[in-house]
Amino acid sequence: MINVPDDPIGRLPDAWRFCVGTGRFELALRRDYQDSLALVQKDIGFRYIRGHGLLSDGVGVYRPHEYGVRYAFTYVDQVVDAYLGLGIRPFVELGFMPYDLASGDQTVFWWQGNVTPPRSWTGWAELVKATVAHLVDRYGLDEVRQWPIEVWNEPNLAPFWQDADRDAYHRLYEVTAHAVKEVDAELLVGGPALSPGAGDWMARFADFVEDRQVPINFVSCHAYSSGPAQHVPFGTHQTLAPATKLLDQFAEPRATLAGTALAGLPVHITEFNSSYRPDNPIHDTAFHAAYLAPVLAGGGDHVDSFSYWTFSDMFEEVGIPTALFHGGFGLLTHRQLKKPTYHLYAFMARLGGEALARGDDHLVTRHPDGRLAVLAWAPVDVEGTAVGPGDGHRVRLSVPLAGAADAFVARAHVGEDAGNAYAVWCAMGRPLSPRTREIEVLREAAEPVRRYERLPVADGRVTLDLALGRHEVTLVEVSAVVDETPPWWSDSHLLGRGDE
Amino acid sequence: MINVPDDPIGRLPDAWRFCVGTGRFELALRRDYQDSLALVQKDIGFRYIRGHGLLSDGVGVYRPHEYGVRYAFTYVDQVVDAYLGLGIRPFVELGFMPYDLASGDQTVFWWQGNVTPPRSWTGWAELVKATVAHLVDRYGLDEVRQWPIEVWNEPNLAPFWQDADRDAYHRLYEVTAHAVKEVDAELLVGGPALSPGAGDWMARFADFVEDRQVPINFVSCHAYSSGPAQHVPFGTHQTLAPATKLLDQFAEPRATLAGTALAGLPVHITEFNSSYRPDNPIHDTAFHAAYLAPVLAGGGDHVDSFSYWTFSDMFEEVGIPTALFHGGFGLLTHRQLKKPTYHLYAFMARLGGEALARGDDHLVTRHPDGRLAVLAWAPVDVEGTAVGPGDGHRVRLSVPLAGAADAFVARAHVGEDAGNAYAVWCAMGRPLSPRTREIEVLREAAEPVRRYERLPVADGRVTLDLALGRHEVTLVEVSAVVDETPPWWSDSHLLGRGDE
Amino acid sequence: MINVPDDPIGRLPDAWRFCVGTGRFELALRRDYQDSLALVQKDIGFRYIRGHGLLSDGVGVYRPHEYGVRYAFTYVDQVVDAYLGLGIRPFVELGFMPYDLASGDQTVFWWQGNVTPPRSWTGWAELVKATVAHLVDRYGLDEVRQWPIEVWNEPNLAPFWQDADRDAYHRLYEVTAHAVKEVDAELLVGGPALSPGAGDWMARFADFVEDRQVPINFVSCHAYSSGPAQHVPFGTHQTLAPATKLLDQFAEPRATLAGTALAGLPVHITEFNSSYRPDNPIHDTAFHAAYLAPVLAGGGDHVDSFSYWTFSDMFEEVGIPTALFHGGFGLLTHRQLKKPTYHLYAFMARLGGEALARGDDHLVTRHPDGRLAVLAWAPVDVEGTAVGPGDGHRVRLSVPLAGAADAFVARAHVGEDAGNAYAVWCAMGRPLSPRTREIEVLREAAEPVRRYERLPVADGRVTLDLALGRHEVTLVEVSAVVDETPPWWSDSHLLGRGDE
Amino acid sequence: MINVPDDPIGRLPDAWRFCVGTGRFELALRRDYQDSLALVQKDIGFRYIRGHGLLSDGVGVYRPHEYGVRYAFTYVDQVVDAYLGLGIRPFVELGFMPYDLASGDQTVFWWQGNVTPPRSWTGWAELVKATVAHLVDRYGLDEVRQWPIEVWNEPNLAPFWQDADRDAYHRLYEVTAHAVKEVDAELLVGGPALSPGAGDWMARFADFVEDRQVPINFVSCHAYSSGPAQHVPFGTHQTLAPATKLLDQFAEPRATLAGTALAGLPVHITEFNSSYRPDNPIHDTAFHAAYLAPVLAGGGDHVDSFSYWTFSDMFEEVGIPTALFHGGFGLLTHRQLKKPTYHLYAFMARLGGEALARGDDHLVTRHPDGRLAVLAWAPVDVEGTAVGPGDGHRVRLSVPLAGAADAFVARAHVGEDAGNAYAVWCAMGRPLSPRTREIEVLREAAEPVRRYERLPVADGRVTLDLALGRHEVTLVEVSAVVDETPPWWSDSHLLGRGDE
Repeated sequence: MINVPDDPIGRLPDAWRFCVGTGRFELALRRDYQDSLALVQKDIGFRYIRGHGLLSDGVGVYRPHEYGVRYAFTYVDQVVDAYLGLGIRPFVELGFMPYDLASGDQTVFWWQGNVTPPRSWTGWAELVKATVAHLVDRYGLDEVRQWPIEVWNEPNLAPFWQDADRDAYHRLYEVTAHAVKEVDAELLVGGPALSPGAGDWMARFADFVEDRQVPINFVSCHAYSSGPAQHVPFGTHQTLAPATKLLDQFAEPRATLAGTALAGLPVHITEFNSSYRPDNPIHDTAFHAAYLAPVLAGGGDHVDSFSYWTFSDMFEEVGIPTALFHGGFGLLTHRQLKKPTYHLYAFMARLGGEALARGDDHLVTRHPDGRLAVLAWAPVDVEGTAVGPGDGHRVRLSVPLAGAADAFVARAHVGEDAGNAYAVWCAMGRPLSPRTREIEVLREAAEPVRRYERLPVADGRVTLDLALGRHEVTLVEVSAVVDETPPWWSDSHLLGRGDE
Repeated sequence: MINVPDDPIGRLPDAWRFCVGTGRFELALRRDYQDSLALVQKDIGFRYIRGHGLLSDGVGVYRPHEYGVRYAFTYVDQVVDAYLGLGIRPFVELGFMPYDLASGDQTVFWWQGNVTPPRSWTGWAELVKATVAHLVDRYGLDEVRQWPIEVWNEPNLAPFWQDADRDAYHRLYEVTAHAVKEVDAELLVGGPALSPGAGDWMARFADFVEDRQVPINFVSCHAYSSGPAQHVPFGTHQTLAPATKLLDQFAEPRATLAGTALAGLPVHITEFNSSYRPDNPIHDTAFHAAYLAPVLAGGGDHVDSFSYWTFSDMFEEVGIPTALFHGGFGLLTHRQLKKPTYHLYAFMARLGGEALARGDDHLVTRHPDGRLAVLAWAPVDVEGTAVGPGDGHRVRLSVPLAGAADAFVARAHVGEDAGNAYAVWCAMGRPLSPRTREIEVLREAAEPVRRYERLPVADGRVTLDLALGRHEVTLVEVSAVVDETPPWWSDSHLLGRGDE
Repeated sequence: MINVPDDPIGRLPDAWRFCVGTGRFELALRRDYQDSLALVQKDIGFRYIRGHGLLSDGVGVYRPHEYGVRYAFTYVDQVVDAYLGLGIRPFVELGFMPYDLASGDQTVFWWQGNVTPPRSWTGWAELVKATVAHLVDRYGLDEVRQWPIEVWNEPNLAPFWQDADRDAYHRLYEVTAHAVKEVDAELLVGGPALSPGAGDWMARFADFVEDRQVPINFVSCHAYSSGPAQHVPFGTHQTLAPATKLLDQFAEPRATLAGTALAGLPVHITEFNSSYRPDNPIHDTAFHAAYLAPVLAGGGDHVDSFSYWTFSDMFEEVGIPTALFHGGFGLLTHRQLKKPTYHLYAFMARLGGEALARGDDHLVTRHPDGRLAVLAWAPVDVEGTAVGPGDGHRVRLSVPLAGAADAFVARAHVGEDAGNAYAVWCAMGRPLSPRTREIEVLREAAEPVRRYERLPVADGRVTLDLALGRHEVTLVEVSAVVDETPPWWSDSHLLGRGDE
Repeated sequence: MINVPDDPIGRLPDAWRFCVGTGRFELALRRDYQDSLALVQKDIGFRYIRGHGLLSDGVGVYRPHEYGVRYAFTYVDQVVDAYLGLGIRPFVELGFMPYDLASGDQTVFWWQGNVTPPRSWTGWAELVKATVAHLVDRYGLDEVRQWPIEVWNEPNLAPFWQDADRDAYHRLYEVTAHAVKEVDAELLVGGPALSPGAGDWMARFADFVEDRQVPINFVSCHAYSSGPAQHVPFGTHQTLAPATKLLDQFAEPRATLAGTALAGLPVHITEFNSSYRPDNPIHDTAFHAAYLAPVLAGGGDHVDSFSYWTFSDMFEEVGIPTALFHGGFGLLTHRQLKKPTYHLYAFMARLGGEALARGDDHLVTRHPDGRLAVLAWAPVDVEGTAVGPGDGHRVRLSVPLAGAADAFVARAHVGEDAGNAYAVWCAMGRPLSPRTREIEVLREAAEPVRRYERLPVADGRVTLDLALGRHEVTLVEVSAVVDETPPWWSDSHLLGRGDE
């Protein structure tokens, strides 16, 4: 039994909800995307959203013609209007290269983002300035000063930046940062958006920025915990390291930058997930929520944000999904079925601002009005199996609750047997294209299972004895009962027979 | 184990969903009312709606002035427009008496419906004709010919019709029926809307109608199964007869009318419920759903319709409710919390058109595409208690399912421990006016608990072994699995470790 | 030609939009009401809403029973939740008297608000405290401290307060103010909500409050400009004083209170309109908008707010309306047809924060981005006729516009021939209950007529030469053109024939 | 003055609204697209929708893998679900070729639809069968039997079908038609979807189909009236033939097929417009509505349908639009601004089913309830200019109206000075990316101008003397007045002064 103290150990950091990832920019034009994001914002409420492709040809910004260049923001405006309307701001990623400005033909992804340096650095700088200036003009300087602007994506990997050419990236960063600041000196610019395990790149980037006195407001990198890929048609399997590896990756930038001129800058993990593959079914499982629970609970110790990659399966890097469940990154599938990891985030969003206790399997918080909200989870075994029955886990907590004789306890959970649409879809026979009726069944199946009870408060404390199923993540909300039952009330009268 | 046959025993009659009751007419102007009705129509889909007060002063139709009478349909149109927009038609009840046309001061209900005969029979006939003609003009004759028009409500009770004066009612019926038919001969008119146990009234009414050759297209009466009332502040407790009593009441009109000129007319139970009191908490309980399950399953044997009184707690006959749960008739509380009886209806709405078997605790049906839908319930003890723990019940069925090796079985249930917002509200301390956050908790708590499994089909049969909790009503949907799992798939690969 | 200066003469006060009136409290439960208010909030954006009947029996708050009193907030919560959800706050009016707490039978209005003093002053104080404490509990102290709380309505008139008994009102005010402050000392309480022409009452009230040191945070009274009533069935006609009479009434409280202890308190005109009758068709006319235009433009000179009585025709003081247009107070009719006065308010809501000029027929304002918004109106003749053709009016303004060669000028207007659904309804034959198709025609007819042009800017000035039709109110928006026409563009090519 | 007869000359054919065109298939996933289509369906109500790209790679249906082929309907289902939800059915076009099934690399459009024959005819047949069978499985045979299935698009043009190879198309048609019929013999299949002026192709196609006894249920071709293109950056200008050329093109197929085995088959013009360029600003003008008015009025004489290409500017054949108005085909721009041609369609949708008269500048119709609806237009000069001021036109009609002393006449019109958002956008300075506020101004500017009057009926006739502005299209609705003005009413009393 863990005795949770009355006094908080600190604020619960907001880093887990600062930002979320998305498929490429123009996917945001879609209805299912916007409906999905609306749902996410209602239940979770991220502050920023980041994805690739703002400057790629699918958005159509860079439009040379015989007399010059037209910068066209037809789709940019539609997307950003939608974002702001949904209460979320862009975390701007500048990339990839417009075909007409590119120096080469190399592309990444099914949708063919060009990843070569600009053929004209001036042309690139003009494009950046035109884009940022347009945003400022349309949305106002006060607004856009709140949007981090990140230069490119994972330049340390050859598929994302031709030859993973470090000098070329440094030049790109420098040109871009100056272009941004030319629009307004208080705009926020940063990078280098490195993939995991690129500590040397980060150090060299820090040197470069310091040497050349290049503007920088934040640093960014990514975190993933998966091992080598085994491919099957329309799918990929990978081993996973323990979730602590993600926390280790979160901690790296600050460690690397300690003592450099970049020490003290905000650090954003602008992408993280278990597997970096959008066709790895692990993302769909109950295992995945339990696996990430300690990461969400503890990640804020290390960074200013860590951004789940991505909120929706509406994502086309390896092509158009061929089945409803296909291992996409999404918290939601197409048509907005909630995966267990969605609920992990939704549970986090119901926690209070004060942290009272944190352990390997729990996080206890309190709201300003005294209500408690507890997140608990069953630790996972990455050497085991990701689906199916197995042992449970028990969490026993004595939690403080003032001023009441009884507590009302509402518990919601997901796990192998609850809120697990993927498992139900498997039981259905894994229909590639479920019928409308089946989608409705899956929608119902995706909801957490809830139960309610009234527990006694003894000496200002409530005992929570939580039996967790395999891969369970559970939210327990504890509030003081104010009993308004009238004195004349007796349940025994309900069928007209009095108190006998 | 019950062996459900392959061949249907008949169609499942639609009588249970033909009509539903509502609070007085002008309550339909309210947003919560309309939102509630929209929800009901989505999940249940009643065809007609019937309530009191169309001609009472709160609707403002009858408006004498110094030069004559103006008939004003400002609110009538708003309500009927809303009904038709929600896919439900009025089952028109003509009553009560406008104050300016009334012969006396006697009123019924908190909202003071005048229940005295008209001071001018001509004035009444003109009012009826003006009202019906207006409906025909606005909605078209094809439409209004589908709306049953019922004359008054429970004239055999003195509170609803001054002195329960039979001759006066007969005159009212005659004048009204002729007035309706004067507008159009094919409009449907009927009565006498008797309260339970008024067999003699029915017989005398039949004689009267036959003797005078008064037009009549249907007969109507009511059914309730509660005993004497014990009052507490803001509440009433009553004993209940077994649910079979309701079926007996349903059967009475046809028995009474056999051999009369009215034999063979459609019979509508235009109100039914357990208790006739809108402040009896039995309506809020899980008991209530289990109590009524056999009535819904079997009522269609006896009548053309039986109309649950009422779809919503938005109802003010004994005043404005003082607590969220207050024993109202509603399938829904204010703010649209679903009661267990709501789910009973919603489960009925998911049954198939063919009945395969019916018993004391089950009803097995099939859809055109071969899917099965089974309603099962735990029989109740009206001598016992209405809430709290207790014994369960077991239903074992062997059901036919063609053309598949496996069945996908989805089960949803409500009962003492599931989908029981009332019980959760009690655990909360029975807050009279729950906060928004508490209402959301109750909304979640009001959902059925669902589970899913895959069962083998052996010899074209699936065995359903259903353990039901106390006061449980359960819906089991059984469909054939078409397995699209690709040949390369293995769950054991999910964590990257293959088949070892 | 009026030469509007470059520099502002001051801020445009917000008093016109601080508050709006409403029919009795429980009407806010209706869908049409809420839809209407949503429309009003989108186009106008009032900050507060005030109406009668919070404590009357239709809301059901005061519920004595054999063991005491239950305070029931079922409907209060539904209404206030809806208000806050629509972005508007209650301007709380405490009244009228619950029947069970009343000392007499006198009522006001068709809906029978009891206007007698409490039979128990303690009971009244407890009711006030319970109500205010409930609001604080549900909505939070920070929120409720922003809600003015007004004691009763027009106690100086015998129909609204038995015998117009001044001493009894003083006692009511004192008991109530203390009860409110007992809940929280920073809550805002005020009165005496006098009808026009009650200067002596105001002075005596000031003396009383000062003598007894009763808490008071604001003073309130009403303003109407109509003369004696001539009744016809379902209607009333009255002469109107010139609109300046309303401004004079606004100015009275400050004049009366100068030198008293109440000098300097906020003054709220908690009701104003031309006629105080909800069945005077003048409210429906184009005349009415032009009549009130100078009141909205200038009222903020005199008071902190003046609240149009009322936003919607959903109002039942003299009974249920018998026709779509019936002379109701509403900015909107039932079913949300916009009256010309609605557009006057919507035009006001598009004005800028800086006032540049104000005259008898115009108000020129500027937005922060330099755009101008001009309200102009044709002065009316209260000795003339309220409908039909007649002379127009001309307004010529030279307005400043910096930094552009051209101005884009958008003009919207209502008047006898534009945005005048009432006139179109008259042309239709004044149908009491228009069909759906006719309502749609009226909805279209209720929109302002708009036109657009491009005008030259000369020496930083644009000349607006506005010909106004009879009873016209017009909004002119003037913005600088930034011409993005590409150099290769020529309209003469559109049909493929080039520049010949 | 034209004397319109009392008796109808026939039914108004529905060919104008049978079908509408759309940008490529997956654009239907977008929110703006779906919102636009919802608006179109509310105001116009097309029955079918047809566009390219169902089988192209952006939809992702054809997915070969190492063990075979997976047919993936993830996006197909999302789109078709949306269509049916909006009350519109697919007019299925089978094309273009999936990259993995193509025999060559040739593509068409910015979005690169592959236009080469299949590398495997069996593979193509399997793809067609799988697709059609999936649609039947998901939507039901009764539904899909109503969807015309068209084979490819404009095979007579080399950009759309490699080398415009006729024999290859005949083979494609044959293989495809048989594949469709293999799924169900009653499905509707047709072609050859020819571009204008391909009479010989049609004749040869008829021969081929007859010779080989290939199934065919309808024939299809296209119609456009523009001349050679002059390009400017982001735009194209073309001459236009008189609109009668379109009617001539409509008439061609029946003429060509007379006497062949295909005579008597339904003929669908599956695309028509003035210019075939999606960057020709003529589409945005008032001229365009007036130009097409006689085509819509008369096209049904010649064909079973003629489908406007396309309902929305959400269309990317020549790339992503760089400005709000860019000469797109759409009835609506991005963000749903209505173009004048939209209103032409919306006016058509308000006409009655009986045609009473048709002329060069008018079409008079009657509804079942006796109301008249008149479409009138100002004839255009294709040798003149497409925008700007100019002469008007006068239409004088004597129309029959029974049973009333007065007529209520509602008129709505668009033209150079009314409902012309393009002209207002030009006056604004042609902003490429208008701000939100400017879009709202344009939205208001896009509405027709409306006026209302009451006219006398003399000898059962109303005289409509219609002065039309340049490029005006006008809808006049004439209904009988039923005057409900009460006898006591007088407008002269409105200001309280009586009848003096």
